[in-house]
Amino acid sequence: MSKRPLRIGLVGYGFMGRAHSNAFLQAGRFFKTEYEPLLQAVCARNRQRAEAFAANWGYQSVETDWRALTERKDIDLIDIASPNDTHRDIAIAAAETAKMILCEKPLGRTAAESEAMADAAERAKVSTMVWYNYRRVPAVMLLKQLLDQGRFGKIFHYRAKFLQDWTISAELPQGGEGLWRLDVGVAGSGVTGDLLAHCIDTALWLNGPLDRVTAMTETFIKERKHNLTGRVEPVGIDDASAFLGRFANGSLATFEATRYARGHKALYTLEINGEHASAAWDLHDLHRIQFFNHSDEGRLRGWRNINVTDGDHPYMKHWWVPGLQTGYEHTFIHQFADFLNGENDPPAFRDGVAADRVTDAVLASAKSGRWETVAASKK
Amino acid sequence: MSKRPLRIGLVGYGFMGRAHSNAFLQAGRFFKTEYEPLLQAVCARNRQRAEAFAANWGYQSVETDWRALTERKDIDLIDIASPNDTHRDIAIAAAETAKMILCEKPLGRTAAESEAMADAAERAKVSTMVWYNYRRVPAVMLLKQLLDQGRFGKIFHYRAKFLQDWTISAELPQGGEGLWRLDVGVAGSGVTGDLLAHCIDTALWLNGPLDRVTAMTETFIKERKHNLTGRVEPVGIDDASAFLGRFANGSLATFEATRYARGHKALYTLEINGEHASAAWDLHDLHRIQFFNHSDEGRLRGWRNINVTDGDHPYMKHWWVPGLQTGYEHTFIHQFADFLNGENDPPAFRDGVAADRVTDAVLASAKSGRWETVAASKK
Amino acid sequence: MSKRPLRIGLVGYGFMGRAHSNAFLQAGRFFKTEYEPLLQAVCARNRQRAEAFAANWGYQSVETDWRALTERKDIDLIDIASPNDTHRDIAIAAAETAKMILCEKPLGRTAAESEAMADAAERAKVSTMVWYNYRRVPAVMLLKQLLDQGRFGKIFHYRAKFLQDWTISAELPQGGEGLWRLDVGVAGSGVTGDLLAHCIDTALWLNGPLDRVTAMTETFIKERKHNLTGRVEPVGIDDASAFLGRFANGSLATFEATRYARGHKALYTLEINGEHASAAWDLHDLHRIQFFNHSDEGRLRGWRNINVTDGDHPYMKHWWVPGLQTGYEHTFIHQFADFLNGENDPPAFRDGVAADRVTDAVLASAKSGRWETVAASKK
Amino acid sequence: MSKRPLRIGLVGYGFMGRAHSNAFLQAGRFFKTEYEPLLQAVCARNRQRAEAFAANWGYQSVETDWRALTERKDIDLIDIASPNDTHRDIAIAAAETAKMILCEKPLGRTAAESEAMADAAERAKVSTMVWYNYRRVPAVMLLKQLLDQGRFGKIFHYRAKFLQDWTISAELPQGGEGLWRLDVGVAGSGVTGDLLAHCIDTALWLNGPLDRVTAMTETFIKERKHNLTGRVEPVGIDDASAFLGRFANGSLATFEATRYARGHKALYTLEINGEHASAAWDLHDLHRIQFFNHSDEGRLRGWRNINVTDGDHPYMKHWWVPGLQTGYEHTFIHQFADFLNGENDPPAFRDGVAADRVTDAVLASAKSGRWETVAASKK
Repeated sequence: MSKRPLRIGLVGYGFMGRAHSNAFLQAGRFFKTEYEPLLQAVCARNRQRAEAFAANWGYQSVETDWRALTERKDIDLIDIASPNDTHRDIAIAAAETAKMILCEKPLGRTAAESEAMADAAERAKVSTMVWYNYRRVPAVMLLKQLLDQGRFGKIFHYRAKFLQDWTISAELPQGGEGLWRLDVGVAGSGVTGDLLAHCIDTALWLNGPLDRVTAMTETFIKERKHNLTGRVEPVGIDDASAFLGRFANGSLATFEATRYARGHKALYTLEINGEHASAAWDLHDLHRIQFFNHSDEGRLRGWRNINVTDGDHPYMKHWWVPGLQTGYEHTFIHQFADFLNGENDPPAFRDGVAADRVTDAVLASAKSGRWETVAASKK
Repeated sequence: MSKRPLRIGLVGYGFMGRAHSNAFLQAGRFFKTEYEPLLQAVCARNRQRAEAFAANWGYQSVETDWRALTERKDIDLIDIASPNDTHRDIAIAAAETAKMILCEKPLGRTAAESEAMADAAERAKVSTMVWYNYRRVPAVMLLKQLLDQGRFGKIFHYRAKFLQDWTISAELPQGGEGLWRLDVGVAGSGVTGDLLAHCIDTALWLNGPLDRVTAMTETFIKERKHNLTGRVEPVGIDDASAFLGRFANGSLATFEATRYARGHKALYTLEINGEHASAAWDLHDLHRIQFFNHSDEGRLRGWRNINVTDGDHPYMKHWWVPGLQTGYEHTFIHQFADFLNGENDPPAFRDGVAADRVTDAVLASAKSGRWETVAASKK
Repeated sequence: MSKRPLRIGLVGYGFMGRAHSNAFLQAGRFFKTEYEPLLQAVCARNRQRAEAFAANWGYQSVETDWRALTERKDIDLIDIASPNDTHRDIAIAAAETAKMILCEKPLGRTAAESEAMADAAERAKVSTMVWYNYRRVPAVMLLKQLLDQGRFGKIFHYRAKFLQDWTISAELPQGGEGLWRLDVGVAGSGVTGDLLAHCIDTALWLNGPLDRVTAMTETFIKERKHNLTGRVEPVGIDDASAFLGRFANGSLATFEATRYARGHKALYTLEINGEHASAAWDLHDLHRIQFFNHSDEGRLRGWRNINVTDGDHPYMKHWWVPGLQTGYEHTFIHQFADFLNGENDPPAFRDGVAADRVTDAVLASAKSGRWETVAASKK
Repeated sequence: MSKRPLRIGLVGYGFMGRAHSNAFLQAGRFFKTEYEPLLQAVCARNRQRAEAFAANWGYQSVETDWRALTERKDIDLIDIASPNDTHRDIAIAAAETAKMILCEKPLGRTAAESEAMADAAERAKVSTMVWYNYRRVPAVMLLKQLLDQGRFGKIFHYRAKFLQDWTISAELPQGGEGLWRLDVGVAGSGVTGDLLAHCIDTALWLNGPLDRVTAMTETFIKERKHNLTGRVEPVGIDDASAFLGRFANGSLATFEATRYARGHKALYTLEINGEHASAAWDLHDLHRIQFFNHSDEGRLRGWRNINVTDGDHPYMKHWWVPGLQTGYEHTFIHQFADFLNGENDPPAFRDGVAADRVTDAVLASAKSGRWETVAASKK
């Protein structure tokens, strides 16, 4: 084979380290690409775990210091799958050593952090990607195609929610392995940066910029034991976050995220109402969209339950046959294949900055009690 | 008002007596008709109950002998809502006194009974109707219109089920008040004449005649206490009934009814698969149809979830506004309004005969273990 | 019969006049009550239409001036089903002549109006009811019972939406017959008082008082032809309205109403997330609730799709048998039966005031861009 | 690593060759196993295509004659993913060279073929597996666990359907690349062996043996152009197949498969109704089950929509986090991991024989018009 090798160095071995590694391995099996991803090294502070991870996934070597990883000459691409408080420094270091950079979302804990990352990458002229993987759900990509074709006409409403219930117990500690998302110092924020950020990224991509927002956040459990200190400490993250907003195209935004919606595991839902059509999608049945076409004959109008698994649906000719669904992990495979092939405009660091500017405005509004303007993006 | 009075005599005061009486009262409020239904008399063996029923619904008088009712000169129409074993004799007597006749389904316990009823009515030249009310669900009527327009092309499959779970307990007695449906002498059969008959009637109406069937029936609980005798007696009815069959139009039939499907209250479902379109409906959400239109653009094909509540849907301009659902009782109102107005070809006794011929063939096949031909209908 | 006559005078003959009249006629057939509602008079400015309405529904007489109606000695109860701008004056006049008063929602165009109505009724010591009929959906009443039993534990989230699409066309005029809901002078507001008010009333009933809100409204079509003047005039109503809020019990509110959600006819949805359970309901399938019970065995937890049609479900023993659904009109029948029987605490004028105070705060916040406090209710 | 190498030789490079190869590669990444699958060789008559397939999936070598493959000493396991008419001879040859054997379903074109395969494997004492992959859907495995725990009590009904619509066009040819499923000589039968066989295998596993059946088959399109001969030739396969039957446990079977159900892509559905519980599953939303538990509190009984994605659900702790769905390909991964680990009793050749005996009885009954007894299985 004459494929070009792409030597990958991964930071982090958690949930996202696994999802990314799987994408690196699977993309080439199902999509044509001129690159051959090579799993060169994985980096984690705990050497034993890093080695076990490397053995499982086939990484050739292990590092325990991310600076060492970024400085290696035999690596072309750094993938950041470590907690949010490490993103900025790793990305800047990777840029300075001229590596391509992939980074989990949110890009920074604040727009200031993500802006610094994007600036560094631009100075270094390196390719970047932020793992806003839900853009790469075939059903969501189909929505994007329909919107770009003008099928919806003028957009009136865009609403999104991301509902979970995993932190309701007051016994759940904060901080440390698997629970850093509850530690505001590490995560930057709670559901705003974690779940709402996904809703925001998809919305900006599908429906364009958000101009301003008014928001509300809440921390239902005010104190939790901290796993690293062993003490009960104030909880700094937001458990729930909601905002109303106005898009630049005149449509109205209603957004909500929470980890206190009993019965919902990872229910990201979105709905768009336009002059000529409406559509809805949710993550619990990610292989479907609901689509309403006002130009259908009147008495036969109804929401179409579309099983997005046919060969003429986005990405699906690469998989199985109609009716056979793909799942969560495929979104990462699609995103990585698109990155390799430069297709479908994969989300870059500037997109990460744009999302962070909205989450910053949301958090600011929740504090100020006023409408806050979203800072304008360069892009 | 110049409306023509239509003096009604009702036999029976149970579930169906109530549903019919409500239809008599409501039809004129929501539909234009030249008739004014007058609730002249209700007949039941138990005078006290008949009087309570009459007081509640506004019947002007009470009879305790149905022969007396059929002989009254001040009655134009006899409505038979009493158990199945009374249908034939009441109907024949009503025909002989030249009354219009409405009768609950199944028309007879056997096709021989229902044929005698239809013959008597035809000799007397009186109007008849059998209460196969599910034809008058707006969603089902919409299916009929679509089929008549040829929207489905050649039909390949018609499948129907009617699933209930109310007789699973072995403690449930048979016979007597409210439980005569378990007494084969009174009911004629079990689910075949009760539930499957509905499926069959709708199918004959929508998809044309059934030529032949192979069937299976089962009685899960073999003995039950009989309420009238006080003794444990063999159960003669079928608890479950299923058949495969062939329609005259070449499509395949798969039908099933049971009272042993835990979790289903009254789940009548039907689905039609044609060359160009498919549709499905169920009684638990009777105000909707699912419709698949193959001529829709390929990647946007999906089952349309159609809320059949708009003004251009059958019957619905007479009710409220789009999105506001009607329910079970409306099917009787629609059917009675159609009968008064001679619209939409309401099911007459010959239709009742046709359904009974299929149920006869089903029961015969279940015994013989062979395919049985459905006797040809006169109509 | 020894029932006490209740002589009703109705103002208005539109959609709501029909729904109420049907409730007056049906309540006694299906529910036991000591009252016998008598349709004494209907009042409308157009005598011909009033007479046609009276003939259809059985009203004994016709009035063309509501003041004459309120002054009649042979009337016990005034039911106000005319446009919003008439509610206050009719109600006050009815109170002054010591009539019971039923009134369509919203009670007033503003809380000041509804407060005057409630004050007048209290001075006159007359019974009142506001037709917030959705409380009387059996499924919603079941939710109320579950909440009152503490099944949900601490409530975290309450969200509601009411989505329609009937005013998207710019060709639709405002004002006059059937379109007064688009005329701000008559209606008071747009979707806020029309649709959002329903969501708010149910929420206050189920989840208790709302303390404060931040809101956004929009008028997508800025000018429409006015049917009464014949001129194109500015549109004063809100086409869409959304708010975030905080309930007194600490739960978070996210509410939205619009007439620009293509594909939705009358999709009122609500969802409650509590510590131990969650539930959801919607008006397009009003006979169901979705219920999630966290105490179910872990691997078998799921949202239960409950068909609220059994005899042990609220109101349902009065209707048919399990699985057979009722519809929209039944909510009015239930509410009227409850009013007659003094059961289930039917919504009175003070409840109408409470809802109007929230809609006032929503409209004020949409103007001010700030969080607004909901005025405290007397009740 | 000290894993034991397992050298695989694959026959066939089509849809199933891809699905199996993916399973070979992924099983070790997500499941612990002592084996290391090595992709030693792929065999196909067309060398160019075999080489392209080998390059994509990482097979080390290529064969064009399956006999050569079975005779290689450096191969431990033969996986048969070629058309049905090749299964028997390859399997027997593989058994004779003492290879483990995996084979796509149906095992044989007839029970006689599959019996010969099972006999050969038993004589050679080699491990076998037939790819009835739907047993390994996490939701279906959950059903199996619940059934084995006796949660359903006595079973009354088992119904299954497999509906597709891809052969409706009369223009579709039969035979050759990708279309051999329409050529009766190659496939053995139509939907009976292809789709119904899946339904049957799952049913035998979940609900035990089927004793006897009465069946109906149909070929809607009687002649199609044959791709290999270029001539229009009679179609020998069944386009649709349905049967009624009786399980040994006394429950009733209603089964149907078709490729003429417009609007359904691969809708395999099954439902079990027991005394205490019912459950349903379908392939279009394979990550869910619907479960009804009669012991739930009466008024809160409903079908639970269970998202089978939690760590305590079968297989799911190996994947992502709750709410994130897996898809079709995972069933093969699970099945292969179970085979490697000897867990969950993977379907062996004797299970393939059992399914083929039912399909033989179905086809025989469709011809004879009588109930046919299913031949007793050795196992």
